[in-house]
Parts: sequence; C-alpha cells; structure tokens
Amino acid sequence: MIRKTRLFTPGPTPLLPAAQFAMAAADIHHRTPEFRALFLKVLAQLKIFIGTQNDVLLLSSSGTGAMEASVSNFTSPGDKVLVLSAGKFGERWVGLAKAFGLEADVVTAPNGETFDLEVVKKALKPEHKAIYMQASETSTAASHDVEAIARLVKNTDTLLIVDGITGLGTQTFDVDGWGVDILIGGSQKAVMIPPGLAYLSVSEKAWAAAETSKNPRYYFDLRKERKNASKGESAYTPAVALIAGLGAALDYIANQAGGDLEKGRIALIDNAQVNAAATRAGLVALGFTLFAPKSPSAAATAVAVPEGMNSGDLVKALKTRFALVTANGQGEMQGKIFRVAHLGFFDYLDTVAFLGAVEHIAKDTLGLPVEYGQAVAAAQKVYAAAYKK
Amino acid sequence: MIRKTRLFTPGPTPLLPAAQFAMAAADIHHRTPEFRALFLKVLAQLKIFIGTQNDVLLLSSSGTGAMEASVSNFTSPGDKVLVLSAGKFGERWVGLAKAFGLEADVVTAPNGETFDLEVVKKALKPEHKAIYMQASETSTAASHDVEAIARLVKNTDTLLIVDGITGLGTQTFDVDGWGVDILIGGSQKAVMIPPGLAYLSVSEKAWAAAETSKNPRYYFDLRKERKNASKGESAYTPAVALIAGLGAALDYIANQAGGDLEKGRIALIDNAQVNAAATRAGLVALGFTLFAPKSPSAAATAVAVPEGMNSGDLVKALKTRFALVTANGQGEMQGKIFRVAHLGFFDYLDTVAFLGAVEHIAKDTLGLPVEYGQAVAAAQKVYAAAYKK
Repeated sequence: MIRKTRLFTPGPTPLLPAAQFAMAAADIHHRTPEFRALFLKVLAQLKIFIGTQNDVLLLSSSGTGAMEASVSNFTSPGDKVLVLSAGKFGERWVGLAKAFGLEADVVTAPNGETFDLEVVKKALKPEHKAIYMQASETSTAASHDVEAIARLVKNTDTLLIVDGITGLGTQTFDVDGWGVDILIGGSQKAVMIPPGLAYLSVSEKAWAAAETSKNPRYYFDLRKERKNASKGESAYTPAVALIAGLGAALDYIANQAGGDLEKGRIALIDNAQVNAAATRAGLVALGFTLFAPKSPSAAATAVAVPEGMNSGDLVKALKTRFALVTANGQGEMQGKIFRVAHLGFFDYLDTVAFLGAVEHIAKDTLGLPVEYGQAVAAAQKVYAAAYKK
Repeated sequence: MIRKTRLFTPGPTPLLPAAQFAMAAADIHHRTPEFRALFLKVLAQLKIFIGTQNDVLLLSSSGTGAMEASVSNFTSPGDKVLVLSAGKFGERWVGLAKAFGLEADVVTAPNGETFDLEVVKKALKPEHKAIYMQASETSTAASHDVEAIARLVKNTDTLLIVDGITGLGTQTFDVDGWGVDILIGGSQKAVMIPPGLAYLSVSEKAWAAAETSKNPRYYFDLRKERKNASKGESAYTPAVALIAGLGAALDYIANQAGGDLEKGRIALIDNAQVNAAATRAGLVALGFTLFAPKSPSAAATAVAVPEGMNSGDLVKALKTRFALVTANGQGEMQGKIFRVAHLGFFDYLDTVAFLGAVEHIAKDTLGLPVEYGQAVAAAQKVYAAAYKK
C-alpha cells in the first residue's frame, strides 16, 4: 500500500520542488560575483516579503539564532526588558533574556490565549529597553495582536522585537507603519525550504541601540552582517544552497501573483488563512475543541482532544495509517492537544486529504460518533464561501 | 492561492521522488561496468515485477515502440493475426498490423466493454500467427480478461501478445502459467517514472517465431537486444537516466513490502485496486455513470457525464480551479467521458483529495444536486472495509 509522507507540521513544512531543484544546483562559491548577485537578490526579495524599508539580514542559523541576535545586539547586561509569553516560544525569550543577564518583566497569558492589552499597557515601563513577543505562538497555535502592542510602544524608547517565525506568511504586518523594530522569520516555515536560515528586519531605532549594546556577540553580530550585506556578502560562510532555495521559493511566491512578490505574499497569507479556517471548521465538525478559539493562528491549528484521550495516540495513528505527520503538544500541552500546519506550501486539497484522514482515525480508530465526510463537508463550505466566483 | 499540480492522468503518472533523484544523479556512461551492473539489476527486477521466467527486455522508446517490436519481430508480411480491439489502443494494434502488411481479423467490443469470449473463440483460427490485445484499455478504462483469452490460445501455435502498459501494476498476471508470450509495459505508468522506456517479456515460443519473421526491423530488433542484454548492454544508446530512475522505483516498490519485490508488486496492484474501487464509489455517489461498469480497470476510472454536459468542461474546471489534471475521452469518447488514474504513485489520500475537488466542481460549478462530502464518504467506506484491522 502506497502511503506518501505528508508533513503537516508547523515547521518543517513541505518543501517546494522548485526550491529543492535550486538547492541541488547550488554548486557555487560564496565569495564570487555569482553568489553576491544571488545574495543581493534574495535580500531584496526578503524586504518585499517582510514588507519593509528597513534593513533585512539573513543568518545561517535556525530562527533561535535570530532571536539570540535580537537580544544580544540591542541590550546590555542589567537592562530591563518586557517579555510577553504565552507558550513555549514566549518562554524562549525569557531564557534568552536570562542568558544575557537582562532583567525580564514577564506578562503571561494562559496557553492558547493571547495577552490582555490593559495588562501589557500597565506592565510596560519607560525603562524597558525592548519588548519581546511572538506574532504567532507556534506551541499553542494562538496569534498575538502585534499591531495593538505596536501602538503601545510607538513614540517610546522601547524597541518592539517580534518573533514572526510562523507569523510571516500567515498574517499581515505593516512593519514600518506600526513601528516593528525587529521582525524575525525562519526558512522552514512559510518560505517552503528546509531549516538552516533565519532572516530579520532591523529598524534604524534598533541600529542606534546596537551601538550602545555591551553584550558579547560574534557570529550573530548584526552590525557586521549589515556591513557585509551591503556588498552582497555574509560575514561568515553562508548556507549557500538554502539561500538559492530561498530565492527560488520567493520567485515561486511572486509567480503565484504574476511576478508581483508583494501580491504573492498577500495570496500566501490568504492561502494559509483559508486553509486554517477550513481546518478549524472540519475539526470542530468532528467534535474537537479548538485550543486557541479567540485568536487562532493561521500558521497552525491546535485542537484539544477529549478528556481521557491522549493526543499522542491520534498523532501516532495518523502517522502509522496515513504517513501523515502532525505535531503533538509541547511541554505541559503534550498529550492534550495536537497541531496541524497551514503555513507555506500547502494547498486546499491538502486540507481535504488531512481531514479525510482524521475522519478515519476519529471513526475507525478512536470510535468517536462521527460520520465519514463530516469534516470534509464543513471545510468545503468554508472554502466555497471564501472563493465564490 | 497555492494550487499544487496533481497529475491524475493514466500516464504520465506522478513521479516518485526517489526516482527523480536517481535520474538527476545518473551521470554515467552506458558502456561501462557501472551501467552494466545497473542494467542487469533493473532487468532482473523487471522479471520479478512482470512475474516471469521469460526474457525481459528494455527499450528506449514509448510503449508503442514495444508494440511495434511485438508485431515486427514475430510476423511476416501476409501473415494472419487476430486483434481484439475495444478502444483506441486496440485500434493501434490494427494500425501496426496494417503497417507491417499483415492480414488482421478483428474482434471488437463497444467502447467501455470487453470481449465476448464465445466470439473470440469462434474468430480464433489455427492460421492466426498471433493474437493481439490490451490487458487494460486505457482509452475506456475497461480491463480485459487475459487469463480467459490465454486459455483459448494455450496449446495452439498462436502467440498471445498483450499490451500490459496500464495493466502491469494494476492487475495480476501469471505470465508463465497462463502462457502469455509477450507482455508489454511502459515507464510512465505504474513504475512511476517519466515516459521514454518500454519493457516486455518474451517467451521461448515467441523467440522461435522471431527466427522465421521476415519483417524489416532494426532499432526494435529484439534478437539483438536479447544478445546484448545478456552482457548487461543495450543494442543502441539507452535512456540511462530513466533506467536509473526505473531501478530506484522498483527498489521503492520492493521496500514497500520489506524488500520483497514480488510482494511489493502485489501491494502495488492492491493499492491501485482499492483506490479504483474507492473512486468508483465516490463518483457513483455523485450521480456519475461508470463507463466500464462490468470490467473496470484499476489503472483508471472512466465516467460518462450526464447528457448535455461536456466532459471537457469538467476536466478544464478541475485544472483551472485545483491544478488537478485528469483526462478527457479520446476519439469519439471526447466530451462524453473523463478519466482519472490510480496506477503507480497514488495513495488513498490522493483519492480523497480528488473526490473533494470533484465535489466542488459538481456542486459549485456544474450545479449538480449533490452534497459536500458525499463522494468522499462513499470512498471512505470502501477504504475502511478494505483495510479493516
């Protein structure tokens, strides 16, 4: 029996074939005009993909590397910062702040929820050097209102530093209009290539802060990267094949909208949002409970499994029976929720296939009182309404 | 909006990634020990895949090249042959017989049907040098009963020559037990690679006929290929990358059954048959009429569209809306039927996705009185029954 492996994880996401081919062909040296042309092209594309006039840098690291850079480059030991944490990746900001000797005030929200703006407003102090947050908290599949937080920070000296690793390509940002000082993305997310690259936009306000930062940094010294990037180079040996793949993926995103990357970015976000909405409708139709119903992320959907059931069993059954890879909850959510992704190279028929598989597991394996076609039909209604001619 | 291109055509079929990688890596010369080892390995695998002790040859041509070889090598001008024709590929045998100056008696069956065995029995004469037929008539998606025809031919001097181009990997053959003298396959079918290779098994009875054949042949002279194949070579420059891809695909089929290619072949046939049955159930649930209800092929399913509807509109709508590629009818069936494939690298979730897409076209575009999830649910019942634990 053929079972095609289908990644439905919120990173890594399915690889774009055109990017795979570009990676395979990337047999070039990184200190040559060929590479410089590629690097400058990809950096220019990333500016459009992020939607900013700010500098955009590319790091050969995972997204966490760019998160570290966003701490080490703009703060000094003893600085006060505000962290908004509502999940595993919020906690990562706390860990990074601690590692660099910062004093972190933390506003939390329960897993699956987003922050109370009044609480954030009260917590934010002029002495906070930066506010750190996620746009989309991948561990709970909740999205946070970056625009609202940006409104609180604007016209203060505090930097707004946003982990958009699963937010980019799934939600809209007006980086320059809102005043997002740092926005971070990762390669294995909406841009459809394997892990190994992180990218981030850096505002002039952030660059000013970088001048006074006293934190030790070397590999992630963004000033060095900025200087080199202007010449089409990276400070250290870059992940050349991934950069070639990223260029091909951004070409693909542009080509989905007639060559216009800005429109392609909007279409990509729309794609994730419609697939997310269809998936939510399908899973709710099967009786599952959305884990982040009030501010669901379009990057992934998390659902809570019924009391007495282990979400790991469902994840395992989907893998064993259909070679379909979803994600269990992380940390304390393990066993309680499962997550399915929509960011990047997914299309609507992937959603149909996913829900068809979940129906089998729900009915055949778990014995839930559901009918075949029930989730698919709910998703189809969402899709048909979204794309009415 | 992302729409992944999905081939659901009965050749070319979706490419196996492992075969694509093997093709990309096939940078070897064809008169070297490396190539000879590859060629001998693939020929040995093909014997298992066809399921025969007969010689198996590989030609760098489309399936039609092997069909021509099966005429030119075993007959002489003026010979009488019997052709069983029930569609476009049956007619191809008639065309080939004519091209080589044979006298062809033809037993026909209406499109979508198979042959009346009594009629074939009556038509078959001792002077028929060969009987030519399809195992699966791709143009109508009907399968023919090769075993029953073989019973009529056994212990006669007539050769049984079978186009199994879409039959191999979708139905079972006992080549040696039944006495199939020639069985032909093509690369862009169940073996999951692009077009460009044909393969065929040749019985000793057929080799004897080849000795007396007076037809002109050069590129398709099978005696030359047999002689070279024993040394791991092809007579003329072979399509090296495709052969490397074929080897990888046959490895994959074996690996689906723990490394046992014979079991893998059975699993592949089972896969096509379950997907075909699920697809038929789904399409019937939507009110479509099966075009070959009595002897449906597992290679593809053909359905007739309702009176007044053009099947081309449905094919076009699936392509435009979902990038899903199906096949219109050929010849006089154009506009009246559409065909969807199951042979090769398809899995059950592909079938779910296909039916979900057809539901949208049926309901949203064509305005048929159907419900979302209706076809999917019918297919799910078939699948659940087939793979009950």
